Amino acid sequence: MGNTFGTSLKVTTFGESHGPAIGAVIDGVKPGLPISREEIQRELDRRRPGQNKLVSPRRESDQVEILSGIFEGKTTGMPIALLIRNNDAQSKSYESIKNLFRPGHADFTFFSKYGFRDYRGGGRQSARETANWVGAGAIAKKMLAKKGIKIIGYIKEIGGIAAKKADYKEITRNRVNCPDKAAAKKMERLIEKVRKEGDSLGGIVEVVALGVPPGFGDPVFDKLSAGIGKAMLTINAVKGVEIGAGFQAARMKGSQNNDLFFKKGNKVLTKTNNAGGILGGISNGMPIIVRIAVKPASSITKEQETITVNGKKTSVRVFGRHDPCVAIRAVPVAEAMMAIVLADMMISQEKYRN
Amino acid sequence: MGNTFGTSLKVTTFGESHGPAIGAVIDGVKPGLPISREEIQRELDRRRPGQNKLVSPRRESDQVEILSGIFEGKTTGMPIALLIRNNDAQSKSYESIKNLFRPGHADFTFFSKYGFRDYRGGGRQSARETANWVGAGAIAKKMLAKKGIKIIGYIKEIGGIAAKKADYKEITRNRVNCPDKAAAKKMERLIEKVRKEGDSLGGIVEVVALGVPPGFGDPVFDKLSAGIGKAMLTINAVKGVEIGAGFQAARMKGSQNNDLFFKKGNKVLTKTNNAGGILGGISNGMPIIVRIAVKPASSITKEQETITVNGKKTSVRVFGRHDPCVAIRAVPVAEAMMAIVLADMMISQEKYRN
Amino acid sequence: MGNTFGTSLKVTTFGESHGPAIGAVIDGVKPGLPISREEIQRELDRRRPGQNKLVSPRRESDQVEILSGIFEGKTTGMPIALLIRNNDAQSKSYESIKNLFRPGHADFTFFSKYGFRDYRGGGRQSARETANWVGAGAIAKKMLAKKGIKIIGYIKEIGGIAAKKADYKEITRNRVNCPDKAAAKKMERLIEKVRKEGDSLGGIVEVVALGVPPGFGDPVFDKLSAGIGKAMLTINAVKGVEIGAGFQAARMKGSQNNDLFFKKGNKVLTKTNNAGGILGGISNGMPIIVRIAVKPASSITKEQETITVNGKKTSVRVFGRHDPCVAIRAVPVAEAMMAIVLADMMISQEKYRN
Amino acid sequence: MGNTFGTSLKVTTFGESHGPAIGAVIDGVKPGLPISREEIQRELDRRRPGQNKLVSPRRESDQVEILSGIFEGKTTGMPIALLIRNNDAQSKSYESIKNLFRPGHADFTFFSKYGFRDYRGGGRQSARETANWVGAGAIAKKMLAKKGIKIIGYIKEIGGIAAKKADYKEITRNRVNCPDKAAAKKMERLIEKVRKEGDSLGGIVEVVALGVPPGFGDPVFDKLSAGIGKAMLTINAVKGVEIGAGFQAARMKGSQNNDLFFKKGNKVLTKTNNAGGILGGISNGMPIIVRIAVKPASSITKEQETITVNGKKTSVRVFGRHDPCVAIRAVPVAEAMMAIVLADMMISQEKYRN
Repeated sequence: MGNTFGTSLKVTTFGESHGPAIGAVIDGVKPGLPISREEIQRELDRRRPGQNKLVSPRRESDQVEILSGIFEGKTTGMPIALLIRNNDAQSKSYESIKNLFRPGHADFTFFSKYGFRDYRGGGRQSARETANWVGAGAIAKKMLAKKGIKIIGYIKEIGGIAAKKADYKEITRNRVNCPDKAAAKKMERLIEKVRKEGDSLGGIVEVVALGVPPGFGDPVFDKLSAGIGKAMLTINAVKGVEIGAGFQAARMKGSQNNDLFFKKGNKVLTKTNNAGGILGGISNGMPIIVRIAVKPASSITKEQETITVNGKKTSVRVFGRHDPCVAIRAVPVAEAMMAIVLADMMISQEKYRN
Repeated sequence: MGNTFGTSLKVTTFGESHGPAIGAVIDGVKPGLPISREEIQRELDRRRPGQNKLVSPRRESDQVEILSGIFEGKTTGMPIALLIRNNDAQSKSYESIKNLFRPGHADFTFFSKYGFRDYRGGGRQSARETANWVGAGAIAKKMLAKKGIKIIGYIKEIGGIAAKKADYKEITRNRVNCPDKAAAKKMERLIEKVRKEGDSLGGIVEVVALGVPPGFGDPVFDKLSAGIGKAMLTINAVKGVEIGAGFQAARMKGSQNNDLFFKKGNKVLTKTNNAGGILGGISNGMPIIVRIAVKPASSITKEQETITVNGKKTSVRVFGRHDPCVAIRAVPVAEAMMAIVLADMMISQEKYRN
Repeated sequence: MGNTFGTSLKVTTFGESHGPAIGAVIDGVKPGLPISREEIQRELDRRRPGQNKLVSPRRESDQVEILSGIFEGKTTGMPIALLIRNNDAQSKSYESIKNLFRPGHADFTFFSKYGFRDYRGGGRQSARETANWVGAGAIAKKMLAKKGIKIIGYIKEIGGIAAKKADYKEITRNRVNCPDKAAAKKMERLIEKVRKEGDSLGGIVEVVALGVPPGFGDPVFDKLSAGIGKAMLTINAVKGVEIGAGFQAARMKGSQNNDLFFKKGNKVLTKTNNAGGILGGISNGMPIIVRIAVKPASSITKEQETITVNGKKTSVRVFGRHDPCVAIRAVPVAEAMMAIVLADMMISQEKYRN
Repeated sequence: MGNTFGTSLKVTTFGESHGPAIGAVIDGVKPGLPISREEIQRELDRRRPGQNKLVSPRRESDQVEILSGIFEGKTTGMPIALLIRNNDAQSKSYESIKNLFRPGHADFTFFSKYGFRDYRGGGRQSARETANWVGAGAIAKKMLAKKGIKIIGYIKEIGGIAAKKADYKEITRNRVNCPDKAAAKKMERLIEKVRKEGDSLGGIVEVVALGVPPGFGDPVFDKLSAGIGKAMLTINAVKGVEIGAGFQAARMKGSQNNDLFFKKGNKVLTKTNNAGGILGGISNGMPIIVRIAVKPASSITKEQETITVNGKKTSVRVFGRHDPCVAIRAVPVAEAMMAIVLADMMISQEKYRN
């Protein structure tokens, strides 16, 4: 189980990394939303591997087909099914790791849970699954855009190098999705260096949602913060999530951390945004600000000790087509998950306002 | 909505801070588990306010009544309903803040969402709700204990003072739930000082689960990490959550962060535990380690600028009975939420093993 | 599990027939709906046993207490918890049947499922649980009334005696909830006769919903018809449900069964109502008409063969306080379940119209 | 919404009658169940149109493709996605009815709900959707077969002609899925006659589940009876459902209707089966017996009065490729829905027994 995400907007996904196809069924989109295959494809292209040397060389065209739910260019209110065929699945390269557990990888835990091994590229646990989320996220973004909500994700830090600026125009101009030109250069150089060493790097991704009105999220269990926490920790390799001042808030006093309200025109704003746009689990109208910690990819070509499935000592160098810094491609994925959570809560919230 | 938590173990709660009662309905517990009212009460007593000067002086006896689901000292498989009457609800002390929005508080967002104000002590958003979770958590802990799983929570850091030791016996010997005697003393002094200033402090809570076997959690959306992330960010005032090395993992290389497998007797272990017991969203048999960032309480007696419900500038000093450092009482709450998530996933996991 | 009913309006119940209390948590009601304890009590009084010789002599005052979700006479949008204490629980009268399986009763199946026996008056399977539904239904009826929707239930047939008229004013004037005065008299006499024989009677209840606009229900799985089917077959002793012409439709030709559309003022109506107000799973604006088959109560004082829990042959006469014709008290219960289903689908439908 | 069915076994479907494809995602199947494409195809072939003159002449090969969840001939525990391409979609034949509401059809209610019209063959409300259920049902049947549970469906009555025998071998030997050879002949003749008149016929389908052990179903809301009721009333054109003696039970006395327990070998059985295998909402080990009322197809070529979408009087003769008696093809669909409900409850029940 655990293949459906969301409450008012439900995303059900399927497919293994090396099976015939992956796909997603998105249920809960209202009728009348204009959306084209190209808009979804554009988002998928941002996540697609094989684009440059800083990401996995696996070549997937990741062409999406819309199977249902859209008629004459608009949603019908019926579930939207997206299908992506797998083309470049090289299961053979996984033969060598078939009988051992890769350190830091999900091999062992999947085997422990289900009692068998789908060694073909991580099966369902592969990050290939995130293409489904990006597809669904493209639709969620469209729903949000209609209400003036925009989501922007970028690299905040890689291998200890932090972005000092947040110039959104820069993000697409470098290979690391970073809004700081100078930092981006340093990150690129570091990644190339570490990749050559057969190693990998972690990073921090920041996602911002602009234009979210006050009122998204529920006061007790389905808090917006809880929804975001779940969504972000669903992303492969994510080991931490913080909102607004996050862990830094734990080191402040109340008088420092409290954001003071003021009114500007019709809007209630706060002077600071330590809350990251969420108070008591509900959006307060300020930008939603979220950061996630992405661990370094566990698949490295450096030799590491491990054990076989039978418990014997061995060592492994994980070849295959892996990302030296998965945080880069986590950017569109994190945006998608944020979009899905917000669109879901937007639908829920509409119930209180008609 | 959003008053039910969990999938295989469902906790539905109700009640406002200043209404007649709060309560929880716990559904999904198998028949035959021995549990007494006293065991539940003991956990509630750990969370109860009014115990010393470092926590809220509100005096609630928090006596729990079991309304259903237990017969002759054992669970029946039917829903267990817990009821806690509110005794010391002083709604009058909230009159003064009835017409303004307290900074850092959920007043404004609740009002934005529902279009009205339940000013009585935060209504349903009050941390009083967490007594329900602790009650449900007591039952979850009992379920886990039967399988040898134990949960321990404690203060890791307050106001910048970090615990250096993890001596579990110390935790209950000081007023701040800290496993480091020397640090606890410093924390206590700092909290008293800040409380006198009319201010509050944030802190970091760590929760550890020992004895969790490999296999808890699902590989895609219902990852154990995602479940924990949701649970922890459900707790009032929590602004961040991290697992294992957490944000530190984002600064490591793969070769540093990967935990190497080895076999000891029948068990597969790892040499380090940067993963915090979770790989690919599924428990790996190592201790589950989680840290949460608790912001300083927003209710402080220091004067702060704010606006009235009509948008006029004003200032406020929030009197009432508040905690100078909510992180302390967040300890049993975080344990409870961890227990609920683990018990839920334990039930789910049983499906794969019979 | 299985103690929560509904999707957009969730009713979670708890409590055993002979435990301290029963209760319901109703989640999903919007803020601002005026509702008083008395309105809920009035519905409970209609279902209450001990009112006359045609129903169970158990004397329960069934006084409901509202624990949460209502503030200053209006709903707050938070869950509404209702509590009903059990007063007249005579567990001792069940001692004699403790070690055998009553024919037609749920003893055996509950025991088979859970592996133990809560012999106290049927435990959670007792029809006492339906008081919770009637309480929740009172709130649902209030939600529906606001939109001009009204629900009327009555006895259509008892022991083969059918109501020929549908004079709604008659329903409360006789002891069998029948809209046909003459038929009611005959039914009353028959029930008294059968009761004296130590036997029981079945019956058919009809429930009508007036004022339901077109659009309630979903086109595929959450059809209004499917929701009603589930709700009605949830009621104890119900063995069949039909909508509109129901089983009679299976004997018609399409040209006879099709209801022809016409327009009257702004409204689209149909000349006949064989569809019972539902086409393709969605309400069509005509009255919703549902009939349910209620089996005769299994608890009778006539001697019947059966077996002990150890499988030995024995016989039993079931004394205790039972209804000679449970269909009578099923009327307010069926109304309540219909109200809950319609209110749930009303909330869902609102999403498509703002 | 409303495109997912089930709790422990979740079936999510998508696709319109005249879009590119339909499909289903089946989540909750344990790893290790052997299943082949051919087994699923075989069930689909039983439902497929175009097989003879008594059913719709639409020619769909209905070839199913398995996209995920099966590896080396066995389920993996991951979601199983099934895809069926639409080949023979003649949307043009629907042009003539584009601007009016067909009597007895879902045109009007769908339009009322969503505010637009997908006139292409009923869109998502088309009975074509039931191919998805039959596909999912094939997997559910496999799960059940492993535990010795078998499901048999057949025509009990068509146009007033009732089957008098239940010779299961006969079912596949005639064109109406009837277990009584003589009755089948009469039914076939009547259907051909009515079809030539441009009219249609209703019918009654009976579904029997053999080998269901005691314990399936929950005692309160998720009763097996309620689950079956929901499932059966989900099927297009079904207007009634009854279990065991059903509506006849409403006319019996308790002493007649109660099934008396006895023991035979290790098994507890009942002398009669008026309960249809369900007591108190839980299976009792006797055969589950369910009957459904299928209304005559609303699409007939006889001229009928109706109105246009603008409310003007008009008349219509519905050409296209329709079934003269949809009850026949409802047989495999009803079996599939029964299988899905039972497999779902089987998984739930396993939680209580390990």
